[in-house]
Amino acid sequence: MNAFEIAGLVAATLTTGSFVPQVMHTLQRRSADDISSLWLVLFGTGIMLWFVYGLWLNSLPVILANAITFLLLTVIAWIKFAPRPAAEETA
Amino acid sequence: MNAFEIAGLVAATLTTGSFVPQVMHTLQRRSADDISSLWLVLFGTGIMLWFVYGLWLNSLPVILANAITFLLLTVIAWIKFAPRPAAEETA
Repeated sequence: MNAFEIAGLVAATLTTGSFVPQVMHTLQRRSADDISSLWLVLFGTGIMLWFVYGLWLNSLPVILANAITFLLLTVIAWIKFAPRPAAEETA
Repeated sequence: MNAFEIAGLVAATLTTGSFVPQVMHTLQRRSADDISSLWLVLFGTGIMLWFVYGLWLNSLPVILANAITFLLLTVIAWIKFAPRPAAEETA
């Protein structure tokens, strides 16, 4: 494995792994207002298609990275699109 | 070009293109508080490494998609990390 292949593996780990702190951030704030709905839909659809492309390539890193990213995106989408509890009313 | 290759191209277009509405959303709100700083740093570093990997692959789609994504991320980083004007003081 040469330096460029290692760069590719680190790249995949970083772009997928970056969504772990994002999901923690979103769960802590219970808010994703600054995250564009259209970004979430287009990016999520793109990640699904990367997954399909990975199946065709038979590339485990592409399959895994995109499956994990998609799962993490669903948490952000849940916070963004689920109705919020009316916290102000009970406080 | 088969259906899977088309899926890969559409995937690249969507994951990169999704950052156009995100940047517009961020510019309109002048806020990126719900976007994790760590996500921005890790994702941005990952995108730079994908770009390097693309140079080695000699893959124009990988090079272009990641160059454009990186440029769009810098706008989000600018809004997130630049000091905000003290709007409240002048209002």
